[in-house]
Amino acid sequence: MKASILSVGTELLFGQTLNTNSAFLSDRLNRMGIDVLYHFTVGDNPDRLEEILEEALRKTDLVITTGGLGPTQDDLTKETVCKVMKDELVLDEPALLAIQQFFLKVNRPMTENNVKQAYVPKKALILHNNMGTAPGFALTLEGKTVACLPGPPREMSAMFDESLAPYIQKMTGSTIYYRLVRTYGIGESALETTLLDLIDTQTDPTIATYAMEGECYLRVTSKRDTLEEAQQQVDFMVAEILARIGKYVYSIDGENLVDVVASKLIEHKMTISCAESCTGGLFAATLTRVPGISSVFDRCFVTYSNQAKIEELGVLPDTLEKYGAVSMETAKEMAQGVFRATQSNICIAVTGIAGPDGGTEEKPVGLVYISLILTDNTGKQQVYGEEKYIQRNHREKNRELTVLAMLHQVHRLLMEM
Amino acid sequence: MKASILSVGTELLFGQTLNTNSAFLSDRLNRMGIDVLYHFTVGDNPDRLEEILEEALRKTDLVITTGGLGPTQDDLTKETVCKVMKDELVLDEPALLAIQQFFLKVNRPMTENNVKQAYVPKKALILHNNMGTAPGFALTLEGKTVACLPGPPREMSAMFDESLAPYIQKMTGSTIYYRLVRTYGIGESALETTLLDLIDTQTDPTIATYAMEGECYLRVTSKRDTLEEAQQQVDFMVAEILARIGKYVYSIDGENLVDVVASKLIEHKMTISCAESCTGGLFAATLTRVPGISSVFDRCFVTYSNQAKIEELGVLPDTLEKYGAVSMETAKEMAQGVFRATQSNICIAVTGIAGPDGGTEEKPVGLVYISLILTDNTGKQQVYGEEKYIQRNHREKNRELTVLAMLHQVHRLLMEM
Repeated sequence: MKASILSVGTELLFGQTLNTNSAFLSDRLNRMGIDVLYHFTVGDNPDRLEEILEEALRKTDLVITTGGLGPTQDDLTKETVCKVMKDELVLDEPALLAIQQFFLKVNRPMTENNVKQAYVPKKALILHNNMGTAPGFALTLEGKTVACLPGPPREMSAMFDESLAPYIQKMTGSTIYYRLVRTYGIGESALETTLLDLIDTQTDPTIATYAMEGECYLRVTSKRDTLEEAQQQVDFMVAEILARIGKYVYSIDGENLVDVVASKLIEHKMTISCAESCTGGLFAATLTRVPGISSVFDRCFVTYSNQAKIEELGVLPDTLEKYGAVSMETAKEMAQGVFRATQSNICIAVTGIAGPDGGTEEKPVGLVYISLILTDNTGKQQVYGEEKYIQRNHREKNRELTVLAMLHQVHRLLMEM
Repeated sequence: MKASILSVGTELLFGQTLNTNSAFLSDRLNRMGIDVLYHFTVGDNPDRLEEILEEALRKTDLVITTGGLGPTQDDLTKETVCKVMKDELVLDEPALLAIQQFFLKVNRPMTENNVKQAYVPKKALILHNNMGTAPGFALTLEGKTVACLPGPPREMSAMFDESLAPYIQKMTGSTIYYRLVRTYGIGESALETTLLDLIDTQTDPTIATYAMEGECYLRVTSKRDTLEEAQQQVDFMVAEILARIGKYVYSIDGENLVDVVASKLIEHKMTISCAESCTGGLFAATLTRVPGISSVFDRCFVTYSNQAKIEELGVLPDTLEKYGAVSMETAKEMAQGVFRATQSNICIAVTGIAGPDGGTEEKPVGLVYISLILTDNTGKQQVYGEEKYIQRNHREKNRELTVLAMLHQVHRLLMEM
């Protein structure tokens, strides 16, 4: 089955809002074995929406729209879909009741324009909205299906997973299987060169390479009659890839690095604490995104000022004076300070120059020092240090890539255990 | 002038990569007075790319493509654009030299497939890539222009700003002006109801409302013969809006809340430090995204464990025992601990339940307590407390909305100064 995603909303065309809905739906549909061939975005304009919807229905079997179901006057998706799919809007009493109950629950007055949201196409399957007010729906005509979901991401994703996905799964039958092999420390063209013979002779499984900020990944995909067969083909190819570039690989199922690191920390019961200067808490914030991390993550000192480094971590004023706040010596004393306070198995510290200002010829923007003290349960300690030049002319990028480098340092240690 | 943005890349259709390029380009084009009517995304498939490119050229005057200019075999944008725009690819010696120099500069070997990147359409204007290897280009045929930019966001954005934007500016002449009024604490439908008469009678300036996670914003737009005229119309309308809903407004030019807060802190020389539990460093990480914040931000204690709260902030074990780690009493003692350590003008602390686990009937997931101690330069202190129920069934969303609530608490205090 071929699908398109049609996002409706002028805010997307103004560039104020990132289209996360298309990415979410694409990922979900691909995992269900449905090929997503197009993303379309149009504004709150019924003529252009109609035209693109017709186009999308010509090109694909399933069109999922997001947005334009809200209470305001420029929300016109339902009216337009009805016109194209030859249906009419009727008031749905259960939907109206659900909207009224929603407003009661969140203790906000329900304005009159919210009633508009309870109108749905007569022949449609209604999709309930457990996270908001606008119901969605799915409508089929002459073998083509349009499903309409609300725009707010959490309403959309909940409605897809709870109501639309089971409905689509019934419509389809094909079997696809894929793995995402994620790597760090090797560029895309070097990666492709190393695997060129595999890529060139590919028919099934196929191998595709993608570059992301700071890393590359490979998608190995097989489409077969049975899941077992597809799985076998993919696993065989992944084994060959690991044999060639295994040392760069940190996950083979698309997991994020932070999830891989967190689950290994939890599994090995390795406690961790940190001290951050240039990243300003971003390492701790990233690690604590993972549920369950509280069993191993103890604390973090965000010591932005020199005074904080001295008072909280016992960094010597002499060290700051002699080597500067951005130096391996300072990073090391920061990590030692974390260990003194916490005795965590892993104490990691970072100091650097995030930019845009503060760089010098000798210490340019993007230079960071990472120090890590690993203490095993017998008290034996190892100290690791890394000087890294991130080389991005962008403060937030420098900080993100620094956090990535820190996670990789932790990951490498965990791999050796 | 009407424009479309055409993103090329199978990774976008797999949902692995968020399409930030379309948002960036849309924002830039809108600010230049160019209407973006469509976003299209296709995979690395020349037939579908050709078909959509022709479609986009029929519908709009300017099509900007991103992606598919790289060195690998599935990068086919150039070939397809040449076919549609009746041109041919030729080796561009300066582009080849620039690629060779780039690899020298980053000290990586240049693999043979990179030569492919130096081929460009014969009649095109070449756009140099100062951040990577693939050059871009712009090509005009029969009054329609296609501009091709590389996929990696930082290469694309630099190339747009440095080379393509000046070229497009020359092609156009119209004058648009808009302001983005951002609000917090009022829902979209209540906002629209309050402003309905203004919205209904709108022809120019127009007012559109948008809901984002945790906030709403208004876009007030005018298109006139001169910039002065457009500006005057917009400012007049914004003044009317402020008169009605001013207390909810935190910026009238689209600035992010964190930027507004940071610049006010810096302007008033108000120092700030914090203590975080449930947000795990995200408040500090968010605040330190802003360049120059080091002049007022001192430090943050991410005290995830109870032990850390006791040791670093002097929270009483009795308080944790009696009221729990998630309580106003604990939040207050955390803020007091921050003040003892730093004497910062603003000491803010947060504790809560981010989820997905750890919630109870009495203290559900999403419940947070924020405590803030404001100390002026005479030593006079005021203590503020806020109990907030974020009510999102999503750990990261809860954390982000908690940070937003913290920033708003700081913002409210700064507004009163």
